Amino acid sequence: MPVISRRGKDAYTSPIRHLGPYADEAKRKGKHVYHLNIGNPDIHTPASALAKVREATKTNMVPYSPSKGFTSYRKKLVGYYKKFGADLTYEDIIITNGASEGILFSMFSCLDAGDEIIIPEPFYAIYNAFSYVSGVKIVAITSTIETAYALPSPQEFEQYITPRTKALFICNPNNPTGCVYSRKELEQLGEIVKKHDLFLFVDEVYREFSYEEEFFSVLRLKDLDDHVVVIDSISKRFSACGARVGALISKNPHVLENVNKYAEFRLSPPHFGQILAEATLDVPPSYIESVKEEYVRRRDYLIGRLSKMDNVICKKPKGAFYFLAKLPIDDSVKFCKWLLTDFEYKGSTLMLAPASGFYATPGLGKQEVRLAYVLKEEDLKGAMDCLEVAIKVYPGKTPIISNEKAQKISLY
Amino acid sequence: MPVISRRGKDAYTSPIRHLGPYADEAKRKGKHVYHLNIGNPDIHTPASALAKVREATKTNMVPYSPSKGFTSYRKKLVGYYKKFGADLTYEDIIITNGASEGILFSMFSCLDAGDEIIIPEPFYAIYNAFSYVSGVKIVAITSTIETAYALPSPQEFEQYITPRTKALFICNPNNPTGCVYSRKELEQLGEIVKKHDLFLFVDEVYREFSYEEEFFSVLRLKDLDDHVVVIDSISKRFSACGARVGALISKNPHVLENVNKYAEFRLSPPHFGQILAEATLDVPPSYIESVKEEYVRRRDYLIGRLSKMDNVICKKPKGAFYFLAKLPIDDSVKFCKWLLTDFEYKGSTLMLAPASGFYATPGLGKQEVRLAYVLKEEDLKGAMDCLEVAIKVYPGKTPIISNEKAQKISLY
Repeated sequence: MPVISRRGKDAYTSPIRHLGPYADEAKRKGKHVYHLNIGNPDIHTPASALAKVREATKTNMVPYSPSKGFTSYRKKLVGYYKKFGADLTYEDIIITNGASEGILFSMFSCLDAGDEIIIPEPFYAIYNAFSYVSGVKIVAITSTIETAYALPSPQEFEQYITPRTKALFICNPNNPTGCVYSRKELEQLGEIVKKHDLFLFVDEVYREFSYEEEFFSVLRLKDLDDHVVVIDSISKRFSACGARVGALISKNPHVLENVNKYAEFRLSPPHFGQILAEATLDVPPSYIESVKEEYVRRRDYLIGRLSKMDNVICKKPKGAFYFLAKLPIDDSVKFCKWLLTDFEYKGSTLMLAPASGFYATPGLGKQEVRLAYVLKEEDLKGAMDCLEVAIKVYPGKTPIISNEKAQKISLY
Repeated sequence: MPVISRRGKDAYTSPIRHLGPYADEAKRKGKHVYHLNIGNPDIHTPASALAKVREATKTNMVPYSPSKGFTSYRKKLVGYYKKFGADLTYEDIIITNGASEGILFSMFSCLDAGDEIIIPEPFYAIYNAFSYVSGVKIVAITSTIETAYALPSPQEFEQYITPRTKALFICNPNNPTGCVYSRKELEQLGEIVKKHDLFLFVDEVYREFSYEEEFFSVLRLKDLDDHVVVIDSISKRFSACGARVGALISKNPHVLENVNKYAEFRLSPPHFGQILAEATLDVPPSYIESVKEEYVRRRDYLIGRLSKMDNVICKKPKGAFYFLAKLPIDDSVKFCKWLLTDFEYKGSTLMLAPASGFYATPGLGKQEVRLAYVLKEEDLKGAMDCLEVAIKVYPGKTPIISNEKAQKISLY
């Protein structure tokens, strides 16, 4: 038998998706599974945008689009970003297969194998995957639930900069923590990247979901045109994860040139997804407003329920539709698997994302899980009823360990 | 300004797509451009499949699909491949973002950086791109127009095998040559990969377009379950390049496990594309039959016109919808650019793909261009009228040089 690749064998596996087969098995056995593990919202995609897809099927043609995406769509996006204070031309925008591809293209285009990228952890698990594929080394600055996962200070960021550092990378609003970073914090990051001549990658796919204060896009930062690379996607704001349409935004011509090469390799982003995406730009603001209200209701419900549970720690998130909760458990991977294989309450169970996958530092996140509030309140109620019982009967019950202590345990 | 990546700067650029801006400019100036440069057919996508997409827009949901693709689609594909003699289960099939992603996943999953893959040249230019991204070294065995780009002999293949060789890779029916390989030739390759414990990658996206004889799929080869990896796509057979739906097929569980990891990284293939793809499996065989007839008519027309032109060499292709022609020109890249920037005939010009991009060996393909017969006969007539005049007035006219001689020139 020919030998497969070492890099494939060693590749990172997604902590969110690798529990999938256990969920499938649970369902086959007749259990109902509440999916709080993945950001696949049950909110409706705007009907007016879907109507445009419907219309497009009448042309009888499904051709390649330009590698950079439909020009008409890129032009229209200029107006969308203008609403967030960004001054772009359509040539600053390249359409990607979801944010995933935008992250990969950013890494390939700006960093060489062995280069370092500084990311506050916990961070979206997929960043690990793409740093692995591109050979980029993630340097993680740990933040903790005790400080509500606050952005590390400028001094901390600078402390981690080495001659191999090429970029800082944040997600704002943050998946998985639900943090929203302030204008001041972003300006400080801007100063750092300028001072050290680095790139600043910002994943802004949850831009529309800032619940407490006005969202500030790094695209508004002054004199950082060569530094800032924004990754975007329609997946979350229009509940269209399957459209596979994202965007990469930069005003650095060399970055765009590199990204364009990688975009040409895979020929084009999807036809129907782009038609949907372009049509979302005509969806009235009331759509997003009502979606936001819905997420706030869901968030408040979940936080309310969790705060009443013994030995559970969580802080109210300010954006996106995720947060992390610390539970009295030994190991979140084991616990999430056990929920699917060994637990049920009134014929149901819930699926969560173990937080260990959101950390680069081994051993962290063992008592944390990520919850996505993407289900309607009735389902969230069912899920919380399950969780409440589960943490009481889970065989690996363990008192909450403070992060400082937990880190020591993982290091020594 | 932060420095972009070396790998991005050095990355291969597509010879097919990099002429795009010149074509755009020609059109802006009012010139009509006949696109024979890219396999983006003007044939209609089946209406019944588009109707299913239309129907799907009524659900108001565009969720992620499983990373491996819709299970229903994978199950239905088993029946499709059975028609070509393949005995598969749905678990042997992973849905990809077009064949492009299938090629990338094959390389990442089976080969490490520095490993070698043997490919007869000329080959589909994109293979260069993905070998670059994955750090795989292409070892090219040159075939020539004088032998109608016949598959190199088993002895030739074996001559190129080194301890770093991990796979042989062919495209059947072949893009860009139009060759269709026989059962005997494929069995011989099967023997080689077995003897040397290699993978056999076969890009079969033109499977349906074999015009002279019955197509033989490597999936029928006996006792090669661990070796064969087939790359597929609906782009060409259903004129749905923009759907971005392909597949990777293997019966090697370790390969599938690796491919699945990479599939999880990018979350899921496109929703609407997969709905279209699944629906194409119910399209009556008469659709493909009539498309085949149309391509045969177009091929015969093009070959007929070219064979009447002075100093043009081409052989009748047996499959796919491409072939290479040798023209009396100094440099196909220059010539293809000149066609767009400096030439017009009756207000029109044509766009061709310079063949140099289909070779890994520097200097080869300078007098060859690839023609895609993806336009209706009336447009092909216009294109040939242009070409006939163009090769007479092109300032870089150069007598045809035999390949043997050309290779010497490029080597010394």
